[in-house]
Amino acid sequence: MNKRGFASDNNAGVHPQILEAMAACNQGHAIGYGDDVYTKAALEKFKTLFGTDTETYFVFTGTAANVLGITSALRSFNSVICAETAHIHVDECGAPEKFSGCKLLSVATTDGKLTPESIKQHLHGFDFEHHSQPGLVSITQVTEMGTLYTVEEIKAIADLVHSHGMYLHLDGARIANAAVALNSDFKSFTRDAGVDILSFGGTKNGMMYGEAIVFLNPALAENFKYLRKQGMQLASKMRYIGAQFNAYFEDDLWKKSASHANAMAGLLAEKLSHIKGVKITQPVQANGVFVILPRETIASLQKKYFFYIWNEARAEVRLMASFDTTKDDVLDFCRLLEAKMQNATSR
Amino acid sequence: MNKRGFASDNNAGVHPQILEAMAACNQGHAIGYGDDVYTKAALEKFKTLFGTDTETYFVFTGTAANVLGITSALRSFNSVICAETAHIHVDECGAPEKFSGCKLLSVATTDGKLTPESIKQHLHGFDFEHHSQPGLVSITQVTEMGTLYTVEEIKAIADLVHSHGMYLHLDGARIANAAVALNSDFKSFTRDAGVDILSFGGTKNGMMYGEAIVFLNPALAENFKYLRKQGMQLASKMRYIGAQFNAYFEDDLWKKSASHANAMAGLLAEKLSHIKGVKITQPVQANGVFVILPRETIASLQKKYFFYIWNEARAEVRLMASFDTTKDDVLDFCRLLEAKMQNATSR
Amino acid sequence: MNKRGFASDNNAGVHPQILEAMAACNQGHAIGYGDDVYTKAALEKFKTLFGTDTETYFVFTGTAANVLGITSALRSFNSVICAETAHIHVDECGAPEKFSGCKLLSVATTDGKLTPESIKQHLHGFDFEHHSQPGLVSITQVTEMGTLYTVEEIKAIADLVHSHGMYLHLDGARIANAAVALNSDFKSFTRDAGVDILSFGGTKNGMMYGEAIVFLNPALAENFKYLRKQGMQLASKMRYIGAQFNAYFEDDLWKKSASHANAMAGLLAEKLSHIKGVKITQPVQANGVFVILPRETIASLQKKYFFYIWNEARAEVRLMASFDTTKDDVLDFCRLLEAKMQNATSR
Amino acid sequence: MNKRGFASDNNAGVHPQILEAMAACNQGHAIGYGDDVYTKAALEKFKTLFGTDTETYFVFTGTAANVLGITSALRSFNSVICAETAHIHVDECGAPEKFSGCKLLSVATTDGKLTPESIKQHLHGFDFEHHSQPGLVSITQVTEMGTLYTVEEIKAIADLVHSHGMYLHLDGARIANAAVALNSDFKSFTRDAGVDILSFGGTKNGMMYGEAIVFLNPALAENFKYLRKQGMQLASKMRYIGAQFNAYFEDDLWKKSASHANAMAGLLAEKLSHIKGVKITQPVQANGVFVILPRETIASLQKKYFFYIWNEARAEVRLMASFDTTKDDVLDFCRLLEAKMQNATSR
Repeated sequence: MNKRGFASDNNAGVHPQILEAMAACNQGHAIGYGDDVYTKAALEKFKTLFGTDTETYFVFTGTAANVLGITSALRSFNSVICAETAHIHVDECGAPEKFSGCKLLSVATTDGKLTPESIKQHLHGFDFEHHSQPGLVSITQVTEMGTLYTVEEIKAIADLVHSHGMYLHLDGARIANAAVALNSDFKSFTRDAGVDILSFGGTKNGMMYGEAIVFLNPALAENFKYLRKQGMQLASKMRYIGAQFNAYFEDDLWKKSASHANAMAGLLAEKLSHIKGVKITQPVQANGVFVILPRETIASLQKKYFFYIWNEARAEVRLMASFDTTKDDVLDFCRLLEAKMQNATSR
Repeated sequence: MNKRGFASDNNAGVHPQILEAMAACNQGHAIGYGDDVYTKAALEKFKTLFGTDTETYFVFTGTAANVLGITSALRSFNSVICAETAHIHVDECGAPEKFSGCKLLSVATTDGKLTPESIKQHLHGFDFEHHSQPGLVSITQVTEMGTLYTVEEIKAIADLVHSHGMYLHLDGARIANAAVALNSDFKSFTRDAGVDILSFGGTKNGMMYGEAIVFLNPALAENFKYLRKQGMQLASKMRYIGAQFNAYFEDDLWKKSASHANAMAGLLAEKLSHIKGVKITQPVQANGVFVILPRETIASLQKKYFFYIWNEARAEVRLMASFDTTKDDVLDFCRLLEAKMQNATSR
Repeated sequence: MNKRGFASDNNAGVHPQILEAMAACNQGHAIGYGDDVYTKAALEKFKTLFGTDTETYFVFTGTAANVLGITSALRSFNSVICAETAHIHVDECGAPEKFSGCKLLSVATTDGKLTPESIKQHLHGFDFEHHSQPGLVSITQVTEMGTLYTVEEIKAIADLVHSHGMYLHLDGARIANAAVALNSDFKSFTRDAGVDILSFGGTKNGMMYGEAIVFLNPALAENFKYLRKQGMQLASKMRYIGAQFNAYFEDDLWKKSASHANAMAGLLAEKLSHIKGVKITQPVQANGVFVILPRETIASLQKKYFFYIWNEARAEVRLMASFDTTKDDVLDFCRLLEAKMQNATSR
Repeated sequence: MNKRGFASDNNAGVHPQILEAMAACNQGHAIGYGDDVYTKAALEKFKTLFGTDTETYFVFTGTAANVLGITSALRSFNSVICAETAHIHVDECGAPEKFSGCKLLSVATTDGKLTPESIKQHLHGFDFEHHSQPGLVSITQVTEMGTLYTVEEIKAIADLVHSHGMYLHLDGARIANAAVALNSDFKSFTRDAGVDILSFGGTKNGMMYGEAIVFLNPALAENFKYLRKQGMQLASKMRYIGAQFNAYFEDDLWKKSASHANAMAGLLAEKLSHIKGVKITQPVQANGVFVILPRETIASLQKKYFFYIWNEARAEVRLMASFDTTKDDVLDFCRLLEAKMQNATSR
C-alpha cells in the first residue's frame, strides 16, 4: 500500500470513473493524433463551456500548456510578466525562455497575486528596440500560494493588459478548485473576465495526464497545431486524453472532486488553526494550506505523510488536499502533529 | 464499434494486460515525477536489458525521445545526419531543429537505410567554423520503410561514426518488431553494436503513451533530467508510465505482441504477392507492407479499412499490422481488394 | 605588402572612396543606433532604389541579413527551401536553424540555381501538422556557383512561391555583380520580379562591413527592429555603416567596382579557356570562375596567389575577382599556371 | 557640424589614431575571417594582457560578446544571475534568453552592484530538475550606474560563484574606464580576481565597432568559433577589427582616452555639486554622472546637448563623458543649466 500525504495534488492517483472511461474507449482502432470520436466529443465540450468560437488543443503537461500557449501569442522579442512565485518562473526549468525565446519579468508578491499596480513596473520601454517588448501577463488561478483572484481582480488586470495591446494568460492547473471556491462556472472568471489563453488542467484533480490549452481569443490559435507538434506534445493515441476529459466533465465529476479537495483543505486549516504554535500564512481559499510548523516536528511528520517544505528559513510547509484526501487523513495528521509537539515540549 | 485498419500501429488500442497494470497501480499516493516504485522497477528493468551502467528516462512521445536524446548529445552548431525518410526529418514538424538548434542533413535512400558510404557525403567540413559540425548519425530500426538493419550494418555505421568523434542514435519506435525479426534481444543490435542513444518505443506495440530514452553511453545522460523538464516531458504522475513498461516486459508481452504484428504483415505480404497487378515495393521484414495497388481500388478500400497513401504519384500505400491485427482482417482485406479489382476490370 | 589572390572577394580591402567617407563622418557626436544623418540618408537611398514603401535595416554580416530576414517572415514550424550549395545551407554553421528554428530543405543542382520544377519536390505536406510547413524559398544572385538567374527565371519562382502563400528571399551578397551582369538596376530582378526580402550585400564589393536587409514586402518588416537587436546586430555607431552605403551609391561606385570585378573574371576565364588541360566548369556570368586545374599545380600556385579548392575530388578550384583585381594579377596567374604545367610535364 | 552631448559614450566618433590604423591596413589582400596579420597581432596582445593560456575572439557588438560568452559557458537549463539594471537584462531585447535559452534572474540594487549576499537569494534549487540551474553570475564593470567594484568585491563574488560550480562573467563595456579608475591593469580585477569570461569593450572608448570575448577560463572557449559563426558574429574582413585593437593598445591610447573621459565626468560632477537644486545620485567613479535636475530645465537643455532621462519619475538624468568631451562642453553645460534654472525661478 502506498503512503498517503499532502505533498501535492498530483501524488493522488486517478479517479476511478476516469480510469473506467479510459478502459471503455480501449476497443478497436481509432485514427491517431486526435481524429477520433472521444477527442472530438471532449473538444466539443470545451466549446460548450467556453463558447463555440474558442479553440482547444490537448497536450501532455501543464508546463507544455503554459509554454506553448505563451509561444503562440508572442514572438521571441516579447516579455512575459508574472508573479515571482509563478510556476512558469520557478518550476519549469526555464522551458518558457527556451521554447519561446521570451524574457520573463517577475513581480514580488506576498500572496502570489499580481495587481494592475504591481504589473505596471514592467510596462515601459514600448517601441524601444533595446527593450523586450511586454507582450503578455500570466496569472495563476488558484495561485501557487493557494489564493484566489476575484473576477473583478482578473478583469482589472485584463483591462490594463489589453490597453497596452498585450495578452492575458491564465495558468489554470487548479482551475477546478478555483471554480468551486468562487462558486462559478469556468467561463465567468476566464473568458468573460478578459483572459485570452487558458491552460486548463485536470491532472491535479484526478486525471492521469493531459491538459488543455483553451484559446479564448481564437485568433491566437492560428497555426497552433504546428507549434504543438514542434513542441513534442502531439499524442498519437489521443483518444485516451479525450476519454479522460469526457469523464471529467460527465456529471460534474470535476466539481465533486475539487469541492472535496477544497473542503478537506478547509477542514485541515480549521483544525490547524486551533493548534497553538502553528501559524497559517496564507488565506486558505482552495485546496492548499501554507503553514508554519514547529521546526522539530517536520521531519518526523514526513515519515508518515508526504509533504514539502515551502520556506526552509521559516519552517513553512505546504499541505495540499486532493480528491482522495479523507477526513481521517486530516484528523490523523493533526493528531500526529499535536503528539509530536507535546513530545518536543516534554523533552 | 471502431473501424479497423492498417493505417498505423498507433491506431490500435492498448494491450489489455497493460491497461490492467495501469489500473493496478492506481491506489493511494505516489510521489510525483518518477520517485515511485513502479517507475523505479521499470527503470531497473532497463538496466537489466541494456546494462547496469546505462541510464533511462521516460518521456511522453517518440518525437520527444528523439529530439531530447539528440539535444543531450550535441550543441547547436552540430549537424545530424539521417535518411531522407527519417521520422526526425519528415514527421516531427521541425522539432529537432527548433529544440536542439542543429541542422539536419538528409541522405537519399531506396529502402530507408543509411550506409557508411552514403553517410560519408556529409562527413566533411570538420573544424571549419562556417560549417555545421557533424555530430550525430540517426538511424531508425525498423526503418520507416519497414526494412531492417542487420547487426553488422549497424556496427559498420557505428564504427564510422565513432571514428569521427560522433554519436549514433537509434530511433526505436518499432524496436520490438526489429528484435523479433532479428530473433534477438534488444541489446545485441543496439548497445553491443555501438549505438549511443536509443529512443525505445512502446506505443506502437500496445502501450498507451510513454517512451524511453536509453543512454547506452551514460556520459550523455549527464544533466538530462533538466533537459527533460525544460523539454516539457516530465510526467507528474509517472507511475502510470512505469506500470506500462513493467507490464510490457512481463512475460515477454512485448515479444508476443510484436511477433504477432510481424506475422500478420508477413501473411498480408504473402497473400498480396499472389494478387496480380499488385506490387510489393520493399522487403517485408517487420510489421509494415509497402505496396502499389491499382489506383482505382484505393479510395473504396479505405472506406472499410484505414490506411495511408505513401506515394501518391505511383499509388503506393503503406499497410501496418499491429498487435491486434487478426488473420481475418488480413484475409478480408485481400478478398476485398480482389473484388474491387475485378469490378474495376469488368467495368 | 599583403599577398594578393583570387580566394574571395572579401579578401580585398575597402575601396578608398568608401574609406574616405567613413573618415569624413568622423566628427562630433551622432546619436547611436541609427538616428543619425548618415544612416538616414543611406536609408533614403534604398527607398529611391526599391520604392518608397520598402523598409531597409542595416546589420553587420550577410549571414545576419539572411538569418534575420528569414526569421522575420516565418515562424519556427516553417521550412526554407534552398539550393544544396546555398550559403545559408553550407556556410552559416546552422545559424538559420538556430535562430529561426526552421528546417532547411535543400535541392541538388548542377549550377546553384533553383527552378520551379526542382522546388516542387518540397512543396507538399501543407496543412499536415507533422510536417514543417514550407514557408520560404531562398535563392542567391549571383549564385554560389557564379551563375545568374534571368529576371524571367526569378519571376517564375516567385509566382510558384506566392501561389503557395510562401515568400521569396534573395541572398544578394553579390547583387552588384548580378546587376552589372544583367545590365540592370537592382529593382528589376528583385522587387519587380517578386522577391519579398533581399539581403543586399556590399562587403564583397568594396565595403568594410555592414549589409542591408531590404523588405520589398514591407509587411514583413513589422517588428524587425526588435529582431535585429535580439539578433545582436544593432550597431551603436551606425553612422559608419550609413557613410559606407552613401559612398557606395555615390556616382555609381558600386557599379564601377562590380563591372571591373566581372570584367576581370571574364578575362581570367578567357585566358584559362586557351590553356589546354584546364576545364571551366560553370558559365562565367559574374565575378567567379570555377575551373578544374591539373592537380599537381594547385599547391604551388597557392604559394603566390590565395584561392580555395572547391571540390577536392576533381581538383576544381574557385577563383574570385574583386574590385581591386588587376589585369596583371590575371595575366601573371595564367602565366604561372602554364609554367607549372610545363614543369609538371617535363618532369 | 554634429551636435555634441552627454547622451552616451557611443555617440562620440572614432579616435583619430584608430581611424588611421584602419586606413593603414587597407592595402592588398588579407585572408578573411581572422587569418590575417592584424588580427593575429591583436589577439597576441590580449594574451600579453591576460595570460598566454587565455583565448580571445572578436565579435561586432557588446551584446554579442555578452550573449555568446554566456552561451559558451552554459546549457539552456541554466540560469544567469545579474543586477536588475544589467545591460543583459534591460538593454538587449531578450537576446540572452533567445540565444542561450537560459533564464535571467535579476537582483535589485541601489548602485548597480551585486554582492555575495544579494546573489544568494537565487542560489537554491541545485539538483532540482524543476528549477533552472544557477550557472553563471554576470557583473558589469563599470556598472550601468557608473559605479565600480573593488578587486576585493569581485573576488568575494568569484569565490561564492565558484564554490557553487558556477562561472563569473564580467561585462566590460567600459572596462577601460574601470581600469583607469582603479589605477590598475586589466588583469588584476578580472582574471586575477576570478572572472571566467570577459566581454572586453572598446566601442564606448573610441573604437568604431568590434568587441572581444576573452576566455580567462580557456576551457570555456572550446568550440567557441562555431558559436561565433552561428551567432552571426564572424567578421569577413576582420583585419579592420584587429587594426582597431592594435591602435587601441598602442602607447596606451585606451588609457589616455578613458582617463580623459573619467576626468571630464569628475569635473562635471564637481561643478554640478555646487549648483543648488541639483542632486547627484550615484558615486561618480568613472565616466558617468547620474543626477536629478530641476524637471523644467531638462527639455530645453536637451536642445543643445544630447542626454537621456534615466528615471522619469524623479527627473534623474544620465550624463556620460567620452574621450572627446571637452572642458568647454562641461563648463558650458553647467552654465546653461544654471541659466535655465534662474529663468525658471524668475518666471
